[in-house]
Amino acid sequence: MATRRGFLQQGLAAGAAGAAASRAMARDGAEDPPAGGPAAGHLRIGMILFPRMDQIDFTGPFEVLSRLPDSTIHVLAKEEEPVRDVMGLILTPEGSLASAPPLDILVVPGGPGQEALMEDEAVLGFLRDRSAKARFVYSVCTGALLCGAAGLLKGVRATTHWASFDLLKYFGAIPVDERVVLDGKHLSAAGVTAGIDGALTLAALLRGERAAQQIQLGIEYAPKPPFDSGTPKTAPPEVLDAARAATAALTRRRLETARRAARRLGVSPAE
Amino acid sequence: MATRRGFLQQGLAAGAAGAAASRAMARDGAEDPPAGGPAAGHLRIGMILFPRMDQIDFTGPFEVLSRLPDSTIHVLAKEEEPVRDVMGLILTPEGSLASAPPLDILVVPGGPGQEALMEDEAVLGFLRDRSAKARFVYSVCTGALLCGAAGLLKGVRATTHWASFDLLKYFGAIPVDERVVLDGKHLSAAGVTAGIDGALTLAALLRGERAAQQIQLGIEYAPKPPFDSGTPKTAPPEVLDAARAATAALTRRRLETARRAARRLGVSPAE
Repeated sequence: MATRRGFLQQGLAAGAAGAAASRAMARDGAEDPPAGGPAAGHLRIGMILFPRMDQIDFTGPFEVLSRLPDSTIHVLAKEEEPVRDVMGLILTPEGSLASAPPLDILVVPGGPGQEALMEDEAVLGFLRDRSAKARFVYSVCTGALLCGAAGLLKGVRATTHWASFDLLKYFGAIPVDERVVLDGKHLSAAGVTAGIDGALTLAALLRGERAAQQIQLGIEYAPKPPFDSGTPKTAPPEVLDAARAATAALTRRRLETARRAARRLGVSPAE
Repeated sequence: MATRRGFLQQGLAAGAAGAAASRAMARDGAEDPPAGGPAAGHLRIGMILFPRMDQIDFTGPFEVLSRLPDSTIHVLAKEEEPVRDVMGLILTPEGSLASAPPLDILVVPGGPGQEALMEDEAVLGFLRDRSAKARFVYSVCTGALLCGAAGLLKGVRATTHWASFDLLKYFGAIPVDERVVLDGKHLSAAGVTAGIDGALTLAALLRGERAAQQIQLGIEYAPKPPFDSGTPKTAPPEVLDAARAATAALTRRRLETARRAARRLGVSPAE
């Protein structure tokens, strides 16, 4: 059922750590732990799918975390049925939330479909329950709004997609305008592709910098965007205007949902 | 069957261009075309899946190209059946190679599973046939080896994953150590995550820089890797050694396959 690092340990994965090298690296990494030392023991990583998510919020972190030594990824959804991401890509879970094993790490992606889950107690209850027991909860993009709706971000420093950044306060979160934010067990990445950066940070937290660096080398992550238009600060004004216009309706709906969540959570943000 | 931009035109996609904005941008982009001007008319983009591929070679470009104005993505595989990527993620095609419609763009990802297709005439014949009619053929990572085996890279400047870079000569290609290389209709990206950079380049070629910039902003692609270990030049030596050791067996197999391809293609590389 689970996506196991066993695939890699067959020595078949291009550009990723083999078993022997990984064990050596986990050892090396322990010499210079980034935050209290790498985790001991096998890691169970739960990654959530839902309809109309943004697929790379999931596939970006999957690319990194599936190469983590001594770990298993559990691809989960509310129901164990294929979903389509917001652009139509079919993604298939291999377990339901209700059937998920204990999880050390919980990864919560975002995308427009997050809206439909913001008052879904089956999903929010799962996030609350598993978060309490997890070593890290990692939200990517508007996955932070889901974590917020579950009440996980009260008093927690966090980030999210730039178009939803102003909504964090409705969940009692402390908005931090960085690409990756760590506060206790809560790791959050900004929009969409920031999930890769955050996953490498998480890999280092769990297995040491050397392990994260070897994954980075394997996936040749030395990004070189052809344009400097990846944030509202750097995009040409007319590009930003067009992007804002394109997402205005969704952003309005998200604001209404966030206000309802604030009332439910007893949060009174300054508006 | 196809993954249509219609999803986005319902105004539901977060952080991506809405229909009106996109049309405006396609117009704006025409003022400053990066390479002969954006393409006119609806674009049919074929993206190939295969077993034991590296999923982000596909999902990275999908994230960008699925947001291209006035286009349809066709997710194809040799057989119309789900495949698992090398780390076990299930990916589902919605058409077979044999049933594919005419394609303006062909995207060829890589990953260890490329080896099994290097002498598969059904796949190589498809690549040859569709490449002849396509506006662009875009290889990501070791997808370049597949294009090479199909005879598409003779005399063509190209790149691939760093661990396979020395194999390009066996296909008669001119190796270029850049992250993204364009030579005529042949676009190639280096390893794995370079597929995102190349896809943004392709988006600009097809629909103008403004359209590409708006996609970049929507997916908040302002990467900030936590380490500088994404290439052999920048990775710590022990990390590079471990990565090389982990992929040595696969690299040896790929060399043998490349030598056979060279004989078949009549290429005599200096060894």
